[in-house]
Amino acid sequence: MLSALLARRRPGYSLEAPFYLSEDIFEADMEHIFRRHWIFAGVAPQVPEPGDYITVEVGADSVLIVRDDDMNLRAFHNVCRHRGSRLCQDHQGSLGNIVCPYHQWTYDLEGKLIHADHMGEAFLREQHGLKKVHLRNLEGLIFICLADEPPADFEEAAARMRPYLAPHRLDDCKVAAQIDIIEEGNWKLTLENNRECYHCMSNHPELTISIYEQGFGYQPGPQNAEGLAQFEHAVNESRARWEAMGLPSARIEELDTRVSGFRVQRLPLDRAGQSQTLNAEVACKKLLGNFEDKALGGLSVWTQPNSWHHFMSDHVVSFSTIPLSAGRTLVRTTWCVHRDAVEGVDYTVDNLTAVWNATNAQDRRLVEAAQSGVASSAYEPGPYSPYAEALVEAFCSWYVDRMRAGTTAAR
Amino acid sequence: MLSALLARRRPGYSLEAPFYLSEDIFEADMEHIFRRHWIFAGVAPQVPEPGDYITVEVGADSVLIVRDDDMNLRAFHNVCRHRGSRLCQDHQGSLGNIVCPYHQWTYDLEGKLIHADHMGEAFLREQHGLKKVHLRNLEGLIFICLADEPPADFEEAAARMRPYLAPHRLDDCKVAAQIDIIEEGNWKLTLENNRECYHCMSNHPELTISIYEQGFGYQPGPQNAEGLAQFEHAVNESRARWEAMGLPSARIEELDTRVSGFRVQRLPLDRAGQSQTLNAEVACKKLLGNFEDKALGGLSVWTQPNSWHHFMSDHVVSFSTIPLSAGRTLVRTTWCVHRDAVEGVDYTVDNLTAVWNATNAQDRRLVEAAQSGVASSAYEPGPYSPYAEALVEAFCSWYVDRMRAGTTAAR
Amino acid sequence: MLSALLARRRPGYSLEAPFYLSEDIFEADMEHIFRRHWIFAGVAPQVPEPGDYITVEVGADSVLIVRDDDMNLRAFHNVCRHRGSRLCQDHQGSLGNIVCPYHQWTYDLEGKLIHADHMGEAFLREQHGLKKVHLRNLEGLIFICLADEPPADFEEAAARMRPYLAPHRLDDCKVAAQIDIIEEGNWKLTLENNRECYHCMSNHPELTISIYEQGFGYQPGPQNAEGLAQFEHAVNESRARWEAMGLPSARIEELDTRVSGFRVQRLPLDRAGQSQTLNAEVACKKLLGNFEDKALGGLSVWTQPNSWHHFMSDHVVSFSTIPLSAGRTLVRTTWCVHRDAVEGVDYTVDNLTAVWNATNAQDRRLVEAAQSGVASSAYEPGPYSPYAEALVEAFCSWYVDRMRAGTTAAR
Repeated sequence: MLSALLARRRPGYSLEAPFYLSEDIFEADMEHIFRRHWIFAGVAPQVPEPGDYITVEVGADSVLIVRDDDMNLRAFHNVCRHRGSRLCQDHQGSLGNIVCPYHQWTYDLEGKLIHADHMGEAFLREQHGLKKVHLRNLEGLIFICLADEPPADFEEAAARMRPYLAPHRLDDCKVAAQIDIIEEGNWKLTLENNRECYHCMSNHPELTISIYEQGFGYQPGPQNAEGLAQFEHAVNESRARWEAMGLPSARIEELDTRVSGFRVQRLPLDRAGQSQTLNAEVACKKLLGNFEDKALGGLSVWTQPNSWHHFMSDHVVSFSTIPLSAGRTLVRTTWCVHRDAVEGVDYTVDNLTAVWNATNAQDRRLVEAAQSGVASSAYEPGPYSPYAEALVEAFCSWYVDRMRAGTTAAR
Repeated sequence: MLSALLARRRPGYSLEAPFYLSEDIFEADMEHIFRRHWIFAGVAPQVPEPGDYITVEVGADSVLIVRDDDMNLRAFHNVCRHRGSRLCQDHQGSLGNIVCPYHQWTYDLEGKLIHADHMGEAFLREQHGLKKVHLRNLEGLIFICLADEPPADFEEAAARMRPYLAPHRLDDCKVAAQIDIIEEGNWKLTLENNRECYHCMSNHPELTISIYEQGFGYQPGPQNAEGLAQFEHAVNESRARWEAMGLPSARIEELDTRVSGFRVQRLPLDRAGQSQTLNAEVACKKLLGNFEDKALGGLSVWTQPNSWHHFMSDHVVSFSTIPLSAGRTLVRTTWCVHRDAVEGVDYTVDNLTAVWNATNAQDRRLVEAAQSGVASSAYEPGPYSPYAEALVEAFCSWYVDRMRAGTTAAR
Repeated sequence: MLSALLARRRPGYSLEAPFYLSEDIFEADMEHIFRRHWIFAGVAPQVPEPGDYITVEVGADSVLIVRDDDMNLRAFHNVCRHRGSRLCQDHQGSLGNIVCPYHQWTYDLEGKLIHADHMGEAFLREQHGLKKVHLRNLEGLIFICLADEPPADFEEAAARMRPYLAPHRLDDCKVAAQIDIIEEGNWKLTLENNRECYHCMSNHPELTISIYEQGFGYQPGPQNAEGLAQFEHAVNESRARWEAMGLPSARIEELDTRVSGFRVQRLPLDRAGQSQTLNAEVACKKLLGNFEDKALGGLSVWTQPNSWHHFMSDHVVSFSTIPLSAGRTLVRTTWCVHRDAVEGVDYTVDNLTAVWNATNAQDRRLVEAAQSGVASSAYEPGPYSPYAEALVEAFCSWYVDRMRAGTTAAR
């Protein structure tokens, strides 16, 4: 069924209902997308010190990400080699060695089994180390890959994103807030929702304080000619200023032209022009990295299949999407500020998180309305706007390509 | 499996366990029964004014029932033609046009797409109107059919029921109360429970205040000869009186003799003889229609596959059954009184709803006990009483016939 | 799939993941293990008087265990022969006859249908009696078997356990407490957890007050030589004393050498040496049976597939494991004391239940950590300790043998 659905997908139209509803296709998504590609798993500031760890669950796989004593980030399957017990139950914490709670098998931070009682003389500890997971730290964004052989083009994609990200110095940040929400919808509806702003003006009053509605696609016409002209003027003025500072801003759009699809672009913000807050001013007085100018707009970063990020002068807000079932998705939002910023002095969590907490709740309702709607026998794929939904089409096109590649390879 | 089970069904015996337990058969029920037949969806007083709407969920299909500006009732699939979002999330409300919350696609009350931004010059609005659902208003009872070609015999069935229903003027009523309960049981167990009163005396102390236990089948014998004689006297006396008023009362029983199966009968009530209340007196001082006599008994109306109703001199109580899964069923009870009746003066909701709230709760427990029992490996179909369970048999027989027809046609 | 998995099971290693995760294998477990073998269902003190009953749910089957007027225990399927309603909804109670709540069909305590209204002259009551379930009372431990032909070797196994159990006179006890917990894990993980004490020292501070960690397998070495010598001295001293009293204590280990697998052994307890309590002293002043000596250690009894028990001088604690789904298991713990013991005078429930309530909660967490761990794609069966996990291996070996026998027979 899946291969027939993939074969007949109509470009420019939303996907057929089984892609959002079928648990079998969900399993195929996990197999061909989430266990074969680079997945955004978290930010380096979540594990600042040696022994700090987080666990990230990708389907049934729990991945343990830990900073070792040499400050390297490492990822392991969070599974004891004895009887399979999960090792770390919490989402985050700190440890010296990794000790299984069941029978105290003990692994060091490089995954080596260093202790196991009662196992007899013939037992070979060196054959029972933790299983490794691939990990890359891209300027503070942690990506993992569960495949034996990860997509090779990630290094090139990373090289192109690096000059955009590096000046924000995410590695030198701290986590100011992290909030998980559950959307009762398929993960692809979450991503499709993220990849357009056609819905913004009527649904996101807080976000559109700072975000230009023109920034993400529109059909030009007499009624919006003045707004477009203003927006283009702001873009030109800002880009000249940023390039002079050495901050790249040109759009790179590789969402469906490579395996490790991505897109980066720095755009100006509206009104005060500083940050995605309720007054468009910075939420944190202590700026990131070496920045002195508050008006650096928003550097937006999208990666396939599961993340988007906004880097501003004062904070970074980062989103990861983790599918839970065909109709259930975790969206984790992480706000980072400069490591030396002081809560209550330089920033407050309420102000920092206000815009995206509201926006996430609004998007959750939209995703859930879409999920219940596409389940109807009356649903049929509808047309995407050629102006405002081009990046939705890029997401679907990437997804269909990768699924075709995966299911063909699996045959 | 289903066709073998249908083929070997033993008349006069309860159905085999998979009919109550299997999610596959549940899907077949939805396909061949609920998406092919006329389904009771609600009462006209739920949508009294232009722009008033309700949504009804039949399986994964959400149906939007709206009263248009010409006072006609219309039904549409509650699904946007753009990316499939559900249009109206609430169970009821009022609107001018139908506006999708996602990207503001806007439809008029006849389902025509009248506005969609950013879709470009080539986009044809007239090809993206809402999909229609068949609807009939039978004297205030709203039936819908999701099939392309609904069963044609509904008009004839409606014509035969109409003279019974019309004098109660349900179209001129208002909804006094509506209560949903969930039964953890198969929808057919809910219907089987409804189609006999063998269980009434030992389970429904409130209902049997007004309902004659003899009204729904019994095995005659010396022990109940006196009660039967009294009941038959009451029937003869009442019917003569009602016929003189022009109120038809004779039983029409077409439950398993046609596609749009139904049954109507007006029977006297016990004690005060006026209404299904805790003292058998009217619950509402303002009588329905042009009625002046309170003692009009109870006009009971059953329709296959999912409704039953009791029309009395003072109020109408109406039940719809909506399957949610093999083991989960929604029962929606709606009480209507004259549109001009005043709460607190002419009636109170507590008194109006007391009998059926209690009865529904009792029936829910019986249905749930049956659902858990038939799951046992020891369950085998047992015999129906030839006296007290003939209408249960009629329900099962209709169901099996319609499923045979549906699965044969589908081949 | 199942037969291939059974065929390739590697002795000495934990089972492959589908044995813990697959709902299909769960159904096979219910079919070949729980509906074919003798299952521990409860203790006789739960139904002390004529008419007392309990219901026990094994998969979708509800079994009604009742004490009849001649003080015999009987077991029936808890399903009415009319339309399949469950007869008794509560977990325990008392009744004269067994009356179906739906239509009042009435059965006596021997299962005979003695009353059914409206069924007509041709109806044969004698063909509609309750369906029987096999039952054995082994010195107060109630076992049931849902198979038509139960395993014949149970009588021999019972004969060998009887001399160990009889002196504790469980039939003359009362239930002091019964507590159900749900473990979010496969029932085999619950049993595997029960069949070793490798995990005890680091997880069960309350239990290891009285239980010698050496009692359930260990790898000898210089570091534990002193502890082992002390333990062996205690064993020898105690066993001599108990044999002189006529209390058998030698280990019988038949866990994987017969269909009705079991193991019994009486071991000394540590410290005060009397009971599994927080101070190792008796929890009940009134001792069981004719006992005068408090230091009778712990008689541990294990039966395949679903129970374990500890008989002490003052109380019996008894555990039954009932699978609910592949990932969900009920563990029911019952504490019994002498029928004449007085709560608040001879014992308090808090003190009696303290150790095993704590231990159960700890084990639940371990089972749940194992369940989530084996779901990982990285899980592979790991090696059992040849010293400390021999009884886990015996459980798995018995399970695999019985499943092979069942699935072969079913072909």
